Amino acid sequence: MPSDLDLARTFREVWAELSGIGRAPDGGYLRFAWSPAEIALRDWFRAQATARGMTLTHDGNGNLFATWFPAGDGLAPGGGRATADGLLAPSGGPGGVLTGSHFDSVPHGGAFDGPLGIVSAFLAVDLLRDLGFRPERAITVAAFAEEEGSRFGLACLGSRLLTGAIDPQRAAALTDRDGLCLGDVLGAAPAGVRPDLVAGFDAYVELHVEQGRALTAPVGVASAIWPHGRWRFDVEGEGNHAGTTLMSDRRDPMLTYAFTVLAANKEARLRGAHATVGRVEVRPNATNAIPAAVRGWLDARAADEEALARLVEAVAKKATERAGRDGTAIRFTAESTTGEVRFDTGLADRLATLLGGVPILPTGAGHDAGVLSAHLPTAMLFVRNPTGVSHAPAESATDEDCAAGVRALARVLQELSRRPLVDHDEGVAGA
Amino acid sequence: MPSDLDLARTFREVWAELSGIGRAPDGGYLRFAWSPAEIALRDWFRAQATARGMTLTHDGNGNLFATWFPAGDGLAPGGGRATADGLLAPSGGPGGVLTGSHFDSVPHGGAFDGPLGIVSAFLAVDLLRDLGFRPERAITVAAFAEEEGSRFGLACLGSRLLTGAIDPQRAAALTDRDGLCLGDVLGAAPAGVRPDLVAGFDAYVELHVEQGRALTAPVGVASAIWPHGRWRFDVEGEGNHAGTTLMSDRRDPMLTYAFTVLAANKEARLRGAHATVGRVEVRPNATNAIPAAVRGWLDARAADEEALARLVEAVAKKATERAGRDGTAIRFTAESTTGEVRFDTGLADRLATLLGGVPILPTGAGHDAGVLSAHLPTAMLFVRNPTGVSHAPAESATDEDCAAGVRALARVLQELSRRPLVDHDEGVAGA
Repeated sequence: MPSDLDLARTFREVWAELSGIGRAPDGGYLRFAWSPAEIALRDWFRAQATARGMTLTHDGNGNLFATWFPAGDGLAPGGGRATADGLLAPSGGPGGVLTGSHFDSVPHGGAFDGPLGIVSAFLAVDLLRDLGFRPERAITVAAFAEEEGSRFGLACLGSRLLTGAIDPQRAAALTDRDGLCLGDVLGAAPAGVRPDLVAGFDAYVELHVEQGRALTAPVGVASAIWPHGRWRFDVEGEGNHAGTTLMSDRRDPMLTYAFTVLAANKEARLRGAHATVGRVEVRPNATNAIPAAVRGWLDARAADEEALARLVEAVAKKATERAGRDGTAIRFTAESTTGEVRFDTGLADRLATLLGGVPILPTGAGHDAGVLSAHLPTAMLFVRNPTGVSHAPAESATDEDCAAGVRALARVLQELSRRPLVDHDEGVAGA
Repeated sequence: MPSDLDLARTFREVWAELSGIGRAPDGGYLRFAWSPAEIALRDWFRAQATARGMTLTHDGNGNLFATWFPAGDGLAPGGGRATADGLLAPSGGPGGVLTGSHFDSVPHGGAFDGPLGIVSAFLAVDLLRDLGFRPERAITVAAFAEEEGSRFGLACLGSRLLTGAIDPQRAAALTDRDGLCLGDVLGAAPAGVRPDLVAGFDAYVELHVEQGRALTAPVGVASAIWPHGRWRFDVEGEGNHAGTTLMSDRRDPMLTYAFTVLAANKEARLRGAHATVGRVEVRPNATNAIPAAVRGWLDARAADEEALARLVEAVAKKATERAGRDGTAIRFTAESTTGEVRFDTGLADRLATLLGGVPILPTGAGHDAGVLSAHLPTAMLFVRNPTGVSHAPAESATDEDCAAGVRALARVLQELSRRPLVDHDEGVAGA
């Protein structure tokens, strides 16, 4: 068993293998799904699996799996069709416990969001082997595709396809900014739902960097993902000349937009919720023209669905009143809403206890774990983020906390691969 | 002399020849300089000149001229080099009085801003001929290039080149969105300043649609163009995750931007000035990301330069205070400022009296007349705009008011081409 110091050094060395891949001059990462950078990370994944004698499979949706089978380091039982990506995962899949995360990033994102969960999983496997541990059930490391949705616009695309949360034909038609569609980058139409594969796993545990300074211990366990949604708001005014139009004659949609931005921030603060306007489009977006129309997007999240609905209602009410004063019209349209994800409570409690009573906390961010939690007992481990920054270059975690995360994940995988679990309906906690 | 009714009908017929050219489905115009639409309008200009036996010349900067010489309908004296565009205007130019405007539009602009001044000029020539009037000095109709700056980003590009207000090498390097530069569309490097040509004219009179409901009579005379400027403001914050970042941990530049938009509006209203934020750029402009940076542009105009400076100072002070509270940084940079243009007061008074005591009023909009006014006695006639809308499809003027504009311009051209004027330093009023 390596010391904490040795484990932190090992983490640092492995982490350094990835740190140059897809890095922009600002220190942020451009690791869009199937970009050269993300493909290099997939190649790294294959090399890691091969070096450990793990079996490489994929699900036909762009998600990769590396499995450590209980029988030893052999191939997947039941065979499977070989493809350029490795073996298509055979019917029934490897079973056992699934861990992992994703490689792709938001534009100019941080280093940790995604890759930390995959790197930690391989290092946890190493820790278990160093201990002479032999799993009774398979341990599989996953690299999910397009979790951020930065290329094709839909977050958790890989896990949604795998679980049937999106129709593969709809997914195949999604296009990136260059007009390429998912089928082009996959080399084939996505395979879609693999219920045999998903149901074969007993649990999914995703380790992830914490994203908002809510975690003050090195490691924590997730309780839930806040419900969240995106609302587009369209403000229609009257395009006009910036120089000549009397202030009293204006119907300026930028004013209503600006008021809505400030109102959303204020309402969220008063309610202990989160609201952000991070995207705007202006027509015609010219310096010397009062805009004809401004379109904004409100991202809102709250502790429960009723609180979220009340937040958005309050923002829309204030914005509509302001539009009346500005002579503009505003319309809110829900583009996507996701209900609360409450992770398996029994599993979360069990893991928190197993790890010595670490904190249990919710998060405002979506994850593949949120998608998979509808299908199998799912948990998340968080590693402390001292800056609280995420999706940006300043996202961080210390080597020591990352080592603590590896050790915690190893402990969890050991626990969950040691004994058969009861059927999924009753959950892991009953085992 | 045609009746008012006949003149309005004639105007409507000629106007209809242009109304389909470069019109977008929203009713707005896409008549960017040297676009197929604007080239079609230049062809129309040549046809109008030819039909009236006027002499076509150009200045090598993209500006076209059609001259009615006092000697009759003959060619330009002194000859000139023939080019694809017609004759390069000979040294000294035609002299006499210059009128006209521009064909190019802002994106989705109105029909009247620009073309009204050119159409009215040709119809004014027709009116004078119908009266049997023979000018003692030349009357020249101009079509200036790229007045709006919508293609190469610099307003009044043609008149600036002609008068030497911009270096032709700098102008030649300006590129449009497709990467084409001015030399590409001109077919040669711009000729630059033509002092001989400019100094040869005794006066410039531009007829233009009024742009802000300030004119309640059919026709008015301009006193001045308000000083105006464009200030870019850069707000730097910290990019972060919209879902997970605590509201208290945010350094959101969109909040500072929004506050600045509202502050600019309020300060302008309180001061009887104009302020507009019509353009914004957000990095990364993603729905689920607190922006790292937001850049806005403030267009501000006021009755005098001190009032303008105080307005911008007040906005910057409030915005900077707010940035302190938001944890962001804001910086204002003047991108362009234009001092007040006060048109020749004697000429304005003389024309207002000549036209029966029409109103004299300032405008917030820039014009080629503003550029030329630094070099020769210059005046503007405005035609009433009932909607007050400009740079947008709802820009309007009635046929009757346009006919009144033609009649007023004819009266002015008759007056200014009848007798030689005194030298420019003393101004037309002394004549």
